[in-house]
Amino acid sequence: MVSKNQIKLIKGLQQKKYRKQHQLFFAEGIKVVQELLTSDFELYHLFTTEAVFGTFAQDKQTLITETELKKISALTTPNACLAVFAMPAPQPAPNKGLVVALDNVRDPGNLGTIIRLCDWFGIEAIVCSEACVDAYNPKTVQATMGSIARVKVAYTNLEEYLSGVSLPVYGTFMDGENIYRQQFGQQGVIVLGNEANGISPEIQKLVTKKIAIPRFGRLQVTESLNVATASAIIFSEFRRAT
Amino acid sequence: MVSKNQIKLIKGLQQKKYRKQHQLFFAEGIKVVQELLTSDFELYHLFTTEAVFGTFAQDKQTLITETELKKISALTTPNACLAVFAMPAPQPAPNKGLVVALDNVRDPGNLGTIIRLCDWFGIEAIVCSEACVDAYNPKTVQATMGSIARVKVAYTNLEEYLSGVSLPVYGTFMDGENIYRQQFGQQGVIVLGNEANGISPEIQKLVTKKIAIPRFGRLQVTESLNVATASAIIFSEFRRAT
Repeated sequence: MVSKNQIKLIKGLQQKKYRKQHQLFFAEGIKVVQELLTSDFELYHLFTTEAVFGTFAQDKQTLITETELKKISALTTPNACLAVFAMPAPQPAPNKGLVVALDNVRDPGNLGTIIRLCDWFGIEAIVCSEACVDAYNPKTVQATMGSIARVKVAYTNLEEYLSGVSLPVYGTFMDGENIYRQQFGQQGVIVLGNEANGISPEIQKLVTKKIAIPRFGRLQVTESLNVATASAIIFSEFRRAT
Repeated sequence: MVSKNQIKLIKGLQQKKYRKQHQLFFAEGIKVVQELLTSDFELYHLFTTEAVFGTFAQDKQTLITETELKKISALTTPNACLAVFAMPAPQPAPNKGLVVALDNVRDPGNLGTIIRLCDWFGIEAIVCSEACVDAYNPKTVQATMGSIARVKVAYTNLEEYLSGVSLPVYGTFMDGENIYRQQFGQQGVIVLGNEANGISPEIQKLVTKKIAIPRFGRLQVTESLNVATASAIIFSEFRRAT
Protein backbone atom coordinates (compact mmCIF):
# COMPACT_ATOMS: atom_id res chain seq x y z
CA MET A 1 0.00 0.00 0.00
CA VAL A 2 1.04 3.59 -0.59
CA SER A 3 0.25 5.90 2.33
CA LYS A 4 -1.16 9.39 1.89
CA ASN A 5 2.12 10.82 3.12
CA GLN A 6 4.07 8.80 0.56
CA ILE A 7 1.78 10.02 -2.24
CA LYS A 8 2.26 13.60 -1.06
CA LEU A 9 6.03 13.17 -0.84
CA ILE A 10 6.41 11.60 -4.31
CA LYS A 11 4.04 14.07 -5.99
CA GLY A 12 6.11 16.81 -4.40
CA LEU A 13 9.28 15.39 -5.93
CA GLN A 14 8.01 16.48 -9.35
CA GLN A 15 9.02 19.96 -8.20
CA LYS A 16 12.61 21.07 -7.82
CA LYS A 17 12.03 22.81 -4.47
CA TYR A 18 10.77 19.61 -2.83
CA ARG A 19 13.53 17.51 -4.41
CA LYS A 20 15.99 19.97 -2.88
CA GLN A 21 14.22 20.00 0.48
CA HIS A 22 14.00 16.20 0.78
CA GLN A 23 17.21 15.46 -1.18
CA LEU A 24 15.29 12.78 -3.07
CA PHE A 25 14.28 12.16 -6.69
CA PHE A 26 12.43 9.35 -8.48
CA ALA A 27 12.63 7.24 -11.62
CA GLU A 28 10.02 5.04 -13.32
CA GLY A 29 9.77 1.99 -15.55
CA ILE A 30 11.62 -1.31 -15.35
CA LYS A 31 14.54 -0.40 -17.61
CA VAL A 32 15.44 2.90 -15.95
CA VAL A 33 14.81 1.71 -12.38
CA GLN A 34 16.87 -1.43 -13.01
CA GLU A 35 19.82 0.67 -14.20
CA LEU A 36 19.63 2.98 -11.19
CA LEU A 37 19.25 0.08 -8.71
CA THR A 38 22.55 -1.36 -9.92
CA SER A 39 24.29 2.03 -9.79
CA ASP A 40 25.84 3.97 -6.91
CA PHE A 41 22.55 5.75 -6.19
CA GLU A 42 21.13 4.99 -2.77
CA LEU A 43 17.62 3.55 -2.86
CA TYR A 44 15.11 5.26 -0.59
CA HIS A 45 12.05 3.23 -1.56
CA LEU A 46 10.83 1.07 -4.42
CA PHE A 47 7.17 0.65 -5.39
CA THR A 48 6.27 -2.12 -7.84
CA THR A 49 3.03 -3.58 -9.16
CA GLU A 50 4.64 -6.99 -9.68
CA ALA A 51 7.65 -8.71 -8.16
CA VAL A 52 9.95 -7.53 -10.98
CA PHE A 53 12.99 -7.19 -8.76
CA GLY A 54 12.37 -10.29 -6.61
CA THR A 55 13.57 -9.92 -3.06
CA PHE A 56 16.03 -7.12 -3.88
CA ALA A 57 16.07 -4.58 -1.02
CA GLN A 58 13.02 -6.25 0.46
CA ASP A 59 12.77 -3.89 3.41
CA LYS A 60 12.62 -0.93 1.03
CA GLN A 61 10.21 -2.50 -1.43
CA THR A 62 6.40 -2.21 -1.44
CA LEU A 63 4.05 -4.11 -3.70
CA ILE A 64 1.28 -1.79 -4.89
CA THR A 65 -1.70 -1.88 -7.27
CA GLU A 66 -1.86 -0.27 -10.73
CA THR A 67 -4.30 2.27 -9.29
CA GLU A 68 -1.83 3.19 -6.56
CA LEU A 69 1.00 3.48 -9.10
CA LYS A 70 -1.14 5.93 -11.10
CA LYS A 71 -1.45 8.10 -8.00
CA ILE A 72 2.30 8.52 -7.61
CA SER A 73 3.43 8.34 -11.25
CA ALA A 74 4.41 11.33 -13.39
CA LEU A 75 3.86 9.33 -16.59
CA THR A 76 0.69 9.24 -18.69
CA THR A 77 1.12 5.46 -18.90
CA PRO A 78 2.78 4.25 -15.68
CA ASN A 79 5.04 1.24 -16.17
CA ALA A 80 5.29 -1.38 -13.40
CA CYS A 81 7.47 0.51 -10.91
CA LEU A 82 8.61 3.77 -9.39
CA ALA A 83 11.74 4.09 -7.27
CA VAL A 84 12.75 6.97 -5.02
CA PHE A 85 16.50 7.57 -4.62
CA ALA A 86 18.65 9.86 -2.52
CA MET A 87 20.13 12.73 -4.54
CA PRO A 88 23.89 12.31 -4.84
CA ALA A 89 26.18 14.97 -3.37
CA PRO A 90 26.77 17.99 -5.65
CA GLN A 91 29.46 17.30 -8.23
CA PRO A 92 32.53 19.50 -8.60
CA ALA A 93 33.03 21.04 -12.07
CA PRO A 94 35.96 19.23 -13.73
CA ASN A 95 39.11 20.81 -15.15
CA LYS A 96 40.30 18.06 -17.49
CA GLY A 97 39.17 15.62 -20.14
CA LEU A 98 36.22 16.29 -22.41
CA VAL A 99 33.49 18.29 -20.70
CA VAL A 100 30.07 19.46 -21.91
CA ALA A 101 28.90 22.86 -20.63
CA LEU A 102 25.23 23.75 -20.94
CA ASP A 103 24.24 27.40 -21.03
CA ASN A 104 20.59 27.70 -20.00
CA VAL A 105 19.26 24.46 -21.52
CA ARG A 106 15.65 24.49 -20.34
CA ASP A 107 13.90 21.47 -21.79
CA PRO A 108 14.09 18.40 -19.50
CA GLY A 109 13.93 16.02 -22.48
CA ASN A 110 16.87 17.77 -24.16
CA LEU A 111 18.99 17.59 -21.00
CA GLY A 112 18.13 13.90 -20.60
CA THR A 113 19.03 13.17 -24.21
CA ILE A 114 22.35 15.03 -23.84
CA ILE A 115 23.17 13.03 -20.68
CA ARG A 116 22.42 9.81 -22.59
CA LEU A 117 24.65 10.95 -25.48
CA CYS A 118 27.48 11.81 -23.08
CA ASP A 119 27.23 8.31 -21.66
CA TRP A 120 27.39 6.79 -25.14
CA PHE A 121 30.39 8.89 -26.15
CA GLY A 122 32.24 8.39 -22.86
CA ILE A 123 31.96 12.04 -21.79
CA GLU A 124 31.85 11.74 -18.02
CA ALA A 125 31.06 15.28 -16.93
CA ILE A 126 28.50 17.96 -17.72
CA VAL A 127 28.66 21.45 -16.25
CA CYS A 128 25.30 23.25 -16.21
CA SER A 129 24.64 26.94 -15.72
CA GLU A 130 22.37 27.57 -12.76
CA ALA A 131 19.49 28.48 -15.10
CA CYS A 132 19.52 25.01 -16.70
CA VAL A 133 16.70 22.58 -15.99
CA ASP A 134 17.37 20.27 -13.04
CA ALA A 135 18.98 16.93 -13.93
CA TYR A 136 16.72 15.21 -11.38
CA ASN A 137 13.53 16.48 -13.00
CA PRO A 138 11.46 13.29 -13.62
CA LYS A 139 11.31 13.96 -17.37
CA THR A 140 15.08 14.35 -17.52
CA VAL A 141 15.67 11.18 -15.52
CA GLN A 142 13.36 9.23 -17.88
CA ALA A 143 15.01 10.65 -21.01
CA THR A 144 18.47 9.59 -19.78
CA MET A 145 17.25 5.96 -19.83
CA GLY A 146 19.46 5.34 -16.81
CA SER A 147 22.56 7.15 -18.08
CA ILE A 148 22.19 9.65 -15.25
CA ALA A 149 23.81 7.01 -13.05
CA ARG A 150 27.02 7.23 -15.10
CA VAL A 151 27.41 10.90 -16.08
CA LYS A 152 28.32 13.51 -13.46
CA VAL A 153 26.25 16.69 -13.69
CA ALA A 154 27.55 19.79 -11.88
CA TYR A 155 25.65 23.09 -11.48
CA THR A 156 27.70 26.25 -11.21
CA ASN A 157 28.16 29.81 -12.39
CA LEU A 158 29.14 28.98 -15.97
CA GLU A 159 30.82 32.31 -16.62
CA GLU A 160 33.14 31.83 -13.63
CA TYR A 161 33.78 28.20 -14.54
CA LEU A 162 34.74 28.97 -18.14
CA SER A 163 36.86 31.96 -17.06
CA GLY A 164 38.90 29.70 -14.79
CA VAL A 165 39.19 26.55 -16.84
CA SER A 166 42.49 25.72 -18.59
CA LEU A 167 40.93 23.90 -21.55
CA PRO A 168 39.97 25.04 -25.06
CA VAL A 169 36.33 26.18 -25.07
CA TYR A 170 34.32 25.21 -28.17
CA GLY A 171 30.98 26.72 -29.13
CA THR A 172 28.81 26.45 -32.25
CA PHE A 173 28.10 29.60 -34.23
CA MET A 174 26.74 30.27 -37.71
CA ASP A 175 30.10 31.75 -38.69
CA GLY A 176 32.22 29.12 -36.94
CA GLU A 177 34.73 26.83 -38.64
CA ASN A 178 33.43 23.68 -40.33
CA ILE A 179 33.52 20.91 -37.69
CA TYR A 180 34.34 18.34 -40.37
CA ARG A 181 37.69 20.04 -41.00
CA GLN A 182 38.91 20.21 -37.39
CA GLN A 183 41.43 18.10 -35.55
CA PHE A 184 39.81 17.83 -32.15
CA GLY A 185 41.91 16.81 -29.17
CA GLN A 186 40.58 14.69 -26.36
CA GLN A 187 40.40 17.60 -23.94
CA GLY A 188 38.13 20.60 -24.06
CA VAL A 189 34.81 22.10 -23.10
CA ILE A 190 31.94 21.90 -25.60
CA VAL A 191 29.44 24.69 -24.87
CA LEU A 192 25.82 24.22 -25.94
CA GLY A 193 23.29 27.01 -25.70
CA ASN A 194 19.66 27.65 -24.93
CA GLU A 195 16.98 26.14 -27.21
CA ALA A 196 15.64 29.50 -28.40
CA ASN A 197 18.55 31.89 -27.97
CA GLY A 198 21.69 29.82 -28.38
CA ILE A 199 24.80 30.72 -26.37
CA SER A 200 24.34 33.88 -24.30
CA PRO A 201 26.56 36.95 -24.98
CA GLU A 202 28.49 36.62 -21.66
CA ILE A 203 29.38 33.02 -22.48
CA GLN A 204 30.13 33.73 -26.16
CA LYS A 205 33.04 35.91 -25.04
CA LEU A 206 34.61 32.93 -23.29
CA VAL A 207 34.50 30.63 -26.32
CA THR A 208 38.04 30.24 -27.66
CA LYS A 209 37.15 28.18 -30.75
CA LYS A 210 34.05 28.85 -32.84
CA ILE A 211 32.79 25.84 -34.77
CA ALA A 212 29.82 25.20 -37.08
CA ILE A 213 27.90 22.19 -38.35
CA PRO A 214 27.55 22.81 -42.10
CA ARG A 215 24.07 22.82 -43.57
CA PHE A 216 23.60 20.73 -46.71
CA GLY A 217 20.01 21.68 -47.47
CA ARG A 218 18.86 24.66 -49.52
CA LEU A 219 20.79 27.53 -48.08
CA GLN A 220 18.27 30.34 -48.16
CA VAL A 221 16.38 28.89 -45.23
CA THR A 222 17.44 30.11 -41.82
CA GLU A 223 16.89 27.20 -39.56
CA SER A 224 18.85 25.41 -36.93
CA LEU A 225 19.28 21.95 -35.48
CA ASN A 226 17.88 21.35 -32.06
CA VAL A 227 20.38 21.25 -29.21
CA ALA A 228 20.12 17.48 -28.70
CA THR A 229 20.74 16.53 -32.34
CA ALA A 230 23.51 19.17 -32.65
CA SER A 231 25.09 17.57 -29.55
CA ALA A 232 24.96 14.14 -31.18
CA ILE A 233 26.81 15.41 -34.25
CA ILE A 234 29.43 17.36 -32.29
CA PHE A 235 30.17 14.56 -29.79
CA SER A 236 30.49 12.12 -32.69
CA GLU A 237 33.03 14.42 -34.40
CA PHE A 238 35.10 14.70 -31.23
CA ARG A 239 35.21 10.95 -30.73
CA ARG A 240 35.42 9.60 -34.28
CA ALA A 241 39.11 10.37 -34.64
CA THR A 242 40.16 8.39 -31.58
CA MET B 1 -14.50 34.49 -34.21
CA VAL B 2 -14.16 30.73 -34.39
CA SER B 3 -17.42 28.92 -35.07
CA LYS B 4 -18.44 25.73 -33.31
CA ASN B 5 -18.01 23.85 -36.58
CA GLN B 6 -14.49 25.20 -37.01
CA ILE B 7 -13.57 24.13 -33.47
CA LYS B 8 -14.97 20.68 -34.13
CA LEU B 9 -13.10 20.42 -37.45
CA ILE B 10 -9.75 21.53 -36.03
CA LYS B 11 -10.02 19.39 -32.90
CA GLY B 12 -10.79 16.48 -35.21
CA LEU B 13 -7.58 17.13 -37.16
CA GLN B 14 -5.61 15.96 -34.13
CA GLN B 15 -6.69 12.49 -35.24
CA LYS B 16 -5.35 10.77 -38.33
CA LYS B 17 -8.76 9.52 -39.50
CA TYR B 18 -10.19 13.04 -39.66
CA ARG B 19 -7.04 14.41 -41.33
CA LYS B 20 -7.48 11.71 -43.94
CA GLN B 21 -11.21 12.36 -44.29
CA HIS B 22 -10.86 16.14 -44.67
CA GLN B 23 -7.41 16.06 -46.34
CA LEU B 24 -6.35 18.84 -43.98
CA PHE B 25 -3.74 19.28 -41.24
CA PHE B 26 -2.69 22.17 -39.02
CA ALA B 27 0.41 23.88 -37.67
CA GLU B 28 0.89 26.33 -34.80
CA GLY B 29 3.15 29.15 -33.68
CA ILE B 30 4.57 32.05 -35.67
CA LYS B 31 7.82 30.39 -36.77
CA VAL B 32 6.30 27.15 -38.09
CA VAL B 33 3.22 28.80 -39.63
CA GLN B 34 5.40 31.42 -41.32
CA GLU B 35 7.52 28.70 -42.94
CA LEU B 36 4.50 26.79 -44.18
CA LEU B 37 2.77 29.94 -45.49
CA THR B 38 5.77 30.63 -47.72
CA SER B 39 5.93 26.99 -48.91
CA ASP B 40 3.98 25.12 -51.58
CA PHE B 41 1.34 24.06 -49.05
CA GLU B 42 -2.11 25.42 -49.80
CA LEU B 43 -3.59 27.47 -46.97
CA TYR B 44 -7.11 26.49 -45.95
CA HIS B 45 -7.52 28.94 -43.08
CA LEU B 46 -5.37 30.99 -40.72
CA PHE B 47 -6.40 31.97 -37.19
CA THR B 48 -4.31 34.60 -35.39
CA THR B 49 -4.62 36.49 -32.11
CA GLU B 50 -2.74 39.47 -33.51
CA ALA B 51 -2.10 40.75 -37.02
CA VAL B 52 1.23 38.89 -37.29
CA PHE B 53 0.91 38.23 -40.99
CA GLY B 54 -0.64 41.60 -41.93
CA THR B 55 -3.04 41.36 -44.83
CA PHE B 56 -1.59 38.08 -46.15
CA ALA B 57 -4.43 35.91 -47.50
CA GLN B 58 -6.94 38.24 -45.94
CA ASP B 59 -9.98 36.26 -47.08
CA LYS B 60 -8.61 33.17 -45.37
CA GLN B 61 -7.53 34.90 -42.18
CA THR B 62 -9.57 35.33 -38.98
CA LEU B 63 -8.54 37.39 -35.98
CA ILE B 64 -9.43 35.50 -32.80
CA THR B 65 -8.99 35.90 -29.04
CA GLU B 66 -6.50 34.02 -26.86
CA THR B 67 -9.45 32.13 -25.35
CA GLU B 68 -10.58 31.04 -28.81
CA LEU B 69 -7.05 29.98 -29.73
CA LYS B 70 -6.95 27.79 -26.63
CA LYS B 71 -10.09 26.04 -27.82
CA ILE B 72 -8.54 24.96 -31.13
CA SER B 73 -4.89 24.56 -30.12
CA ALA B 74 -3.17 21.24 -29.46
CA LEU B 75 -0.41 22.96 -27.47
CA THR B 76 -0.30 23.43 -23.70
CA THR B 77 0.80 27.01 -24.32
CA PRO B 78 -0.78 28.22 -27.57
CA ASN B 79 1.36 30.69 -29.49
CA ALA B 80 -0.33 33.49 -31.46
CA CYS B 81 -1.62 31.50 -34.44
CA LEU B 82 -2.90 28.25 -35.90
CA ALA B 83 -3.09 27.57 -39.63
CA VAL B 84 -4.95 24.80 -41.40
CA PHE B 85 -3.45 23.56 -44.68
CA ALA B 86 -4.51 21.14 -47.39
CA MET B 87 -2.60 17.85 -47.24
CA PRO B 88 -0.32 17.53 -50.24
CA ALA B 89 -0.84 14.66 -52.68
CA PRO B 90 0.81 11.36 -51.61
CA GLN B 91 4.50 11.26 -52.52
CA PRO B 92 5.99 8.50 -54.65
CA ALA B 93 8.85 6.57 -53.02
CA PRO B 94 12.11 7.63 -54.74
CA ASN B 95 14.63 5.35 -56.42
CA LYS B 96 17.70 7.58 -56.44
CA GLY B 97 19.76 9.90 -54.29
CA LEU B 98 20.02 9.57 -50.53
CA VAL B 99 16.78 8.29 -48.99
CA VAL B 100 15.80 7.66 -45.36
CA ALA B 101 13.50 4.69 -44.74
CA LEU B 102 11.66 4.46 -41.42
CA ASP B 103 10.55 1.08 -40.19
CA ASN B 104 7.74 1.56 -37.67
CA VAL B 105 8.91 4.81 -36.06
CA ARG B 106 6.04 5.57 -33.70
CA ASP B 107 6.90 8.70 -31.75
CA PRO B 108 5.65 11.90 -33.46
CA GLY B 109 8.49 13.94 -31.96
CA ASN B 110 11.09 11.53 -33.32
CA LEU B 111 9.61 11.63 -36.81
CA GLY B 112 9.51 15.44 -36.69
CA THR B 113 13.12 15.61 -35.55
CA ILE B 114 14.20 13.21 -38.32
CA ILE B 115 12.38 15.34 -40.93
CA ARG B 116 14.17 18.44 -39.59
CA LEU B 117 17.51 16.61 -39.75
CA CYS B 118 16.84 15.49 -43.34
CA ASP B 119 16.17 19.10 -44.27
CA TRP B 120 19.45 20.20 -42.66
CA PHE B 121 21.46 17.50 -44.40
CA GLY B 122 19.78 17.97 -47.77
CA ILE B 123 18.06 14.56 -47.77
CA GLU B 124 14.92 15.27 -49.74
CA ALA B 125 12.95 12.07 -49.31
CA ILE B 126 11.77 9.84 -46.47
CA VAL B 127 9.98 6.55 -47.07
CA CYS B 128 7.86 5.43 -44.10
CA SER B 129 6.42 1.99 -43.45
CA GLU B 130 2.65 2.08 -43.11
CA ALA B 131 2.94 1.50 -39.34
CA CYS B 132 4.94 4.72 -38.84
CA VAL B 133 3.32 7.69 -37.14
CA ASP B 134 1.64 10.14 -39.54
CA ALA B 135 3.84 13.00 -40.72
CA TYR B 136 0.87 15.36 -40.39
CA ASN B 137 0.31 14.55 -36.72
CA PRO B 138 0.34 17.99 -35.00
CA LYS B 139 3.27 16.97 -32.76
CA THR B 140 5.28 15.87 -35.78
CA VAL B 141 4.51 19.07 -37.68
CA GLN B 142 5.63 21.16 -34.67
CA ALA B 143 8.84 19.14 -34.21
CA THR B 144 9.81 19.68 -37.86
CA MET B 145 9.90 23.45 -37.18
CA GLY B 146 8.64 23.96 -40.74
CA SER B 147 10.98 21.46 -42.44
CA ILE B 148 7.96 19.37 -43.42
CA ALA B 149 7.47 21.88 -46.25
CA ARG B 150 10.81 20.87 -47.78
CA VAL B 151 11.14 17.11 -47.19
CA LYS B 152 8.95 14.65 -49.11
CA VAL B 153 7.47 11.92 -46.93
CA ALA B 154 6.07 8.82 -48.69
CA TYR B 155 4.13 5.99 -47.00
CA THR B 156 4.38 2.55 -48.52
CA ASN B 157 4.95 -1.14 -47.91
CA LEU B 158 8.60 -0.87 -46.87
CA GLU B 159 9.39 -4.51 -47.59
CA GLU B 160 8.21 -4.15 -51.18
CA TYR B 161 9.97 -0.83 -51.59
CA LEU B 162 13.33 -2.13 -50.35
CA SER B 163 12.98 -5.33 -52.39
CA GLY B 164 12.57 -3.28 -55.56
CA VAL B 165 15.02 -0.45 -55.00
CA SER B 166 18.33 -0.42 -56.88
CA LEU B 167 20.32 1.33 -54.16
CA PRO B 168 22.54 0.04 -51.34
CA VAL B 169 20.45 -0.40 -48.18
CA TYR B 170 22.16 0.61 -44.91
CA GLY B 171 20.94 -0.35 -41.46
CA THR B 172 22.46 0.00 -37.98
CA PHE B 173 23.16 -3.16 -35.99
CA MET B 174 25.22 -3.90 -32.90
CA ASP B 175 27.53 -6.08 -35.02
CA GLY B 176 27.65 -3.72 -38.02
CA GLU B 177 30.80 -2.12 -39.40
CA ASN B 178 32.12 1.02 -37.71
CA ILE B 179 30.46 3.98 -39.50
CA TYR B 180 33.60 6.07 -39.00
CA ARG B 181 35.56 3.73 -41.27
CA GLN B 182 33.16 3.69 -44.23
CA GLN B 183 33.32 5.49 -47.55
CA PHE B 184 29.69 6.38 -48.06
CA GLY B 185 28.49 7.30 -51.54
CA GLN B 186 25.85 9.92 -52.19
CA GLN B 187 23.21 7.35 -53.05
CA GLY B 188 21.58 4.83 -50.80
CA VAL B 189 18.77 4.08 -48.40
CA ILE B 190 19.39 4.55 -44.67
CA VAL B 191 16.96 2.35 -42.70
CA LEU B 192 16.06 3.39 -39.15
CA GLY B 193 14.01 1.15 -36.90
CA ASN B 194 11.37 1.27 -34.22
CA GLU B 195 12.15 3.02 -30.89
CA ALA B 196 11.82 -0.15 -28.80
CA ASN B 197 12.52 -2.99 -31.21
CA GLY B 198 14.89 -1.58 -33.82
CA ILE B 199 14.67 -2.83 -37.41
CA SER B 200 12.12 -5.64 -37.84
CA PRO B 201 13.28 -9.10 -39.00
CA GLU B 202 11.59 -8.80 -42.45
CA ILE B 203 13.40 -5.53 -43.12
CA GLN B 204 16.72 -6.73 -41.66
CA LYS B 205 16.91 -9.30 -44.47
CA LEU B 206 16.82 -6.50 -47.04
CA VAL B 207 19.72 -4.54 -45.51
CA THR B 208 22.74 -4.94 -47.78
CA LYS B 209 25.22 -3.08 -45.57
CA LYS B 210 25.23 -3.37 -41.78
CA ILE B 211 26.74 -0.39 -39.99
CA ALA B 212 27.24 0.55 -36.33
CA ILE B 213 27.86 3.71 -34.33
CA PRO B 214 30.68 2.78 -31.93
CA ARG B 215 30.09 3.27 -28.25
CA PHE B 216 32.85 5.09 -26.34
CA GLY B 217 31.44 4.76 -22.84
CA ARG B 218 31.99 1.86 -20.44
CA LEU B 219 31.28 -1.15 -22.56
CA GLN B 220 29.56 -3.45 -20.12
CA VAL B 221 26.38 -1.40 -20.29
CA THR B 222 23.86 -2.44 -22.90
CA GLU B 223 22.22 0.73 -23.97
CA SER B 224 21.35 2.39 -27.23
CA LEU B 225 21.02 5.82 -28.73
CA ASN B 226 17.54 7.03 -29.48
CA VAL B 227 16.49 6.96 -33.13
CA ALA B 228 16.63 10.75 -33.57
CA THR B 229 20.17 11.18 -32.20
CA ALA B 230 21.37 8.06 -34.07
CA SER B 231 19.92 9.64 -37.23
CA ALA B 232 21.84 12.85 -36.60
CA ILE B 233 25.13 10.96 -36.34
CA ILE B 234 24.50 8.76 -39.39
CA PHE B 235 23.33 11.61 -41.65
CA SER B 236 26.35 13.64 -40.59
CA GLU B 237 28.67 10.75 -41.54
CA PHE B 238 27.05 10.42 -44.97
CA ARG B 239 27.40 14.11 -45.71
CA ARG B 240 30.70 15.03 -44.07
CA ALA B 241 32.78 13.55 -46.88
CA THR B 242 31.12 15.62 -49.63
